[in-house]
Amino acid sequence: MAATSDARPVDFDAPPDRYRHWKLSVDGPVATLSMDVQEDAGLSPDYRLKLNSYDLGVDIELADALQRIRFERPEVHAVVLTSLKDRVFCAGANIFMLRGASHAWKVNFCKFTNETRLAIEDASAHSGLKFLAALNGICAGGGYELALACDEIFLVDDGNSAVSLPETPLLGVLPGTGGLTRVVDKRKVRRDLADVFSTVAEGVKGQRAVEWRLVDAVFPRSRFDAAVAARARELAAVSDRPATGPGIVLGPIGAQVSADAVAYSSVALTLERDRRVATLTVRGPDADVETTPGAIQQAGDRFWPLRVFRELDDALLRLRLNEPDIGTVVLRTEGDPGRVLAADAVLLAHRDHWLVRETRHFIKRTLKRLDLTARSFFALIEPGNCFAGTLFELALAADRAYMLDDPEQPNALALSGMNGGLLPMSNGLSRLQVRFLGNPPRVDEVLTHTGAFDPQAAFDAGLVSFAPDELDWDDEVRLTIEGRAACSPDSLTGLEANLRFPGPETLETKIFGRLTAWQNWIFQRPNAVGENGALTAYGSARRPEFDWGRT
Amino acid sequence: MAATSDARPVDFDAPPDRYRHWKLSVDGPVATLSMDVQEDAGLSPDYRLKLNSYDLGVDIELADALQRIRFERPEVHAVVLTSLKDRVFCAGANIFMLRGASHAWKVNFCKFTNETRLAIEDASAHSGLKFLAALNGICAGGGYELALACDEIFLVDDGNSAVSLPETPLLGVLPGTGGLTRVVDKRKVRRDLADVFSTVAEGVKGQRAVEWRLVDAVFPRSRFDAAVAARARELAAVSDRPATGPGIVLGPIGAQVSADAVAYSSVALTLERDRRVATLTVRGPDADVETTPGAIQQAGDRFWPLRVFRELDDALLRLRLNEPDIGTVVLRTEGDPGRVLAADAVLLAHRDHWLVRETRHFIKRTLKRLDLTARSFFALIEPGNCFAGTLFELALAADRAYMLDDPEQPNALALSGMNGGLLPMSNGLSRLQVRFLGNPPRVDEVLTHTGAFDPQAAFDAGLVSFAPDELDWDDEVRLTIEGRAACSPDSLTGLEANLRFPGPETLETKIFGRLTAWQNWIFQRPNAVGENGALTAYGSARRPEFDWGRT
Repeated sequence: MAATSDARPVDFDAPPDRYRHWKLSVDGPVATLSMDVQEDAGLSPDYRLKLNSYDLGVDIELADALQRIRFERPEVHAVVLTSLKDRVFCAGANIFMLRGASHAWKVNFCKFTNETRLAIEDASAHSGLKFLAALNGICAGGGYELALACDEIFLVDDGNSAVSLPETPLLGVLPGTGGLTRVVDKRKVRRDLADVFSTVAEGVKGQRAVEWRLVDAVFPRSRFDAAVAARARELAAVSDRPATGPGIVLGPIGAQVSADAVAYSSVALTLERDRRVATLTVRGPDADVETTPGAIQQAGDRFWPLRVFRELDDALLRLRLNEPDIGTVVLRTEGDPGRVLAADAVLLAHRDHWLVRETRHFIKRTLKRLDLTARSFFALIEPGNCFAGTLFELALAADRAYMLDDPEQPNALALSGMNGGLLPMSNGLSRLQVRFLGNPPRVDEVLTHTGAFDPQAAFDAGLVSFAPDELDWDDEVRLTIEGRAACSPDSLTGLEANLRFPGPETLETKIFGRLTAWQNWIFQRPNAVGENGALTAYGSARRPEFDWGRT
Repeated sequence: MAATSDARPVDFDAPPDRYRHWKLSVDGPVATLSMDVQEDAGLSPDYRLKLNSYDLGVDIELADALQRIRFERPEVHAVVLTSLKDRVFCAGANIFMLRGASHAWKVNFCKFTNETRLAIEDASAHSGLKFLAALNGICAGGGYELALACDEIFLVDDGNSAVSLPETPLLGVLPGTGGLTRVVDKRKVRRDLADVFSTVAEGVKGQRAVEWRLVDAVFPRSRFDAAVAARARELAAVSDRPATGPGIVLGPIGAQVSADAVAYSSVALTLERDRRVATLTVRGPDADVETTPGAIQQAGDRFWPLRVFRELDDALLRLRLNEPDIGTVVLRTEGDPGRVLAADAVLLAHRDHWLVRETRHFIKRTLKRLDLTARSFFALIEPGNCFAGTLFELALAADRAYMLDDPEQPNALALSGMNGGLLPMSNGLSRLQVRFLGNPPRVDEVLTHTGAFDPQAAFDAGLVSFAPDELDWDDEVRLTIEGRAACSPDSLTGLEANLRFPGPETLETKIFGRLTAWQNWIFQRPNAVGENGALTAYGSARRPEFDWGRT
């Protein structure tokens, strides 16, 4: 492929003092997160971020800001999302960025932005944070999709400002961030009206936008700010978050990046580029974790469960964006399983404390990120491991788990109450429920099992895929990884996207399973990205030329 | 694209006397449908159908045979699917056919074969017909996917015969006919074992196949036939179908194909190729329909509800395969709505009679075929229409419905009990429930409405998208169709695949929404279909070369 606007390597650590595109202000229980994209501050110089259009860098800041509100500002109970540009809320993902990006970059960009929007809904559902989109001007494409992720949408009624999804009529692609799904499944816009809405480039404004359920209310410009402020205070009033701070401070993640490794305090990612294999090693706590809310609060971002999953999250994101050729990831753990289980006991005992709750939901979101990472994951459970409780979720999330069965080297894994539904997948089931869809009673059997599972017990219970002995281990693991690495990476991506999500589908899985898959298909099609495709032709004097064959 | 093995035009009328690939035999309540594919009788001479591999022509016969068993042989209560080839059940879709096919052909081939397999499950769920796959030899890819559609799978245990999904390791694509979904969602194979199974080309055989839930039982060759026969009789014993015949005869559909039209007794498809628009007109009954089971049985395939939907089904299939450039389909009806409603009353009054039940489920499947047809459907409701009850489902299935509101020309639509859930979509909801996801009480309101809906009432109730007056009608309809025809056909396909299926997902919608979308993506990727892709290289001396980037 020709030179692209892909901007590797991406750094996902975006502290507020480096924000270019967002302003956060707090007024009592209401935070206002204002989009003010700097045109010349895109990740790549190949495009300019006009009209509050965004690229991955803009979204990394948004994701960071949302995270910080949750952890650093517990006294914030509602968030207003708006824009500092005059008469423009957001024009959506930058088209010139998309046009210049490789297929893989487009797909990963959409995946990350989807996760950010789902994190907004997660905060609303689980953290007592409500979101109000205050659309002070035109709101197109990804801009409207961002609004759709909020609990409510207010639109200024000025005869001009409209919400729209112009991707189909203008660009020949789909809204890439859940827009179609949320329009019909979340806001329950009638499907025929959704069809009209999604095919008129100019969108829908004013009272019709309310009647069609596209927004919750419209106000003339003169009354807009007051209406937004009043509604934000109402939304804030129902929160169960603490009335006052302080929160904790999320310090730098501190990734140490070298040629073939990324190292953190409790996570290590090592890359064997010639084999296209990475090893992701998670280390258990070096000492007993804090056990009281006060001590946890004092530990802040050094509280091991939060720290290790922040590092894991960063490692997964770097893998996705910066290491596209790594096809297989070996998941390992090292440390004292007793300390991991003790940490789980703390997470369970104080699960309603706001900071513990935030930590748990962050762990949940990171594990979902792993479920959605298009790489093959193989867990290797070896002596010295600490696949216990929350960390055993890594093995459950893996495509397969291998456990060494050598009587001379004791080896075990363990479950905890954290495996019982507190870390659900995006389909709403626990990973144990998904694993035992064919044998539901087994879920309780393994959760009530006393003590750890040795390799034979783990295999018999169905908790690991295979338990080779020491004679077979090296060959079996090596051959498995080699075999995987030889398969078509695209076929594996599709295979995993299907096998990892049995059982029910939710709005979330529909976005990643149905909408994203169709979008990825379209992102490959000559009618979009070919020489005369609509995405290619956009912004030029040329009109797109289509192959009219319907597929 | 270079010359392909696409074989247009396809004729979907395949009466048994023209079967080349299947043998049907009946022994009491058990039918045996045996695959015996003739190598040189593919739809195109470009490939040979070795080892019971199949192309669209083979599947058209299978779909026909299944239909005939339901309608013509009510005394059949169980079906054994097996093969007449020695030690080969079925090698799956023919790879050389796939390799030579255009993208659109591959996609439509998979869609049709998926519908055929879902029809097997529909017969099991609703028609008292149980299916036993008797795998008398190797069963690979699409062969195993056909088995997965059956209620039970028996595999011969001869040290050699295995079930397999070798698409990923050998071809770099996915099983295209629901295999991955059914493995984890229907048979509830543990997802890690499903991952192993789907990546080993040689598959799984013998007792391990039972342990992994891939098959229900294995038997040595010496006992296989007896075990199959005994189990088939057991499955037949639980049926609620009539103990004896006769059934009805499904005569030729009798499509009259001309250059720009396909005409049937009650359906007409006219093609305006320059506008890429077709008009599909469905005519109501010319006379009152038969009202008693005896008279219906005597009318046989002339019973209007069955006849009109057989014709509609044929028209939709011809559109899909033979008219790829037609992007928009205008749905119209003509006739006496009173007679349509009278037909609905008959379908409702005798809904438990086997033939009426078959007719209703056939109507349901045809409407699902429409939901899944990748063309834009606009219903035009004009004076003289008979959009009533079952035929109003066509308007509900359409992406939009326009109703002329002209006081000088009375115009109405009507509902019936048939709109109340007897014709569910593949997501399990009625089309009214889907339409009113955002306002569930409206479903009962419109169902209990007395009499027909005039245009204003229909618009107010949300039953039509727009109700233009006679001054606006021509322009609005024309501009709408022109606007639609100007959009990227791929973007529209993705848009419709998302907007048409709000609400819950089922195994069926997962197959079409998630699995198919990923498969279509992969079917576009150079790693599969490029010069050095795995599908291209298969069967040659060359090894595939992959771009290792994961997406």
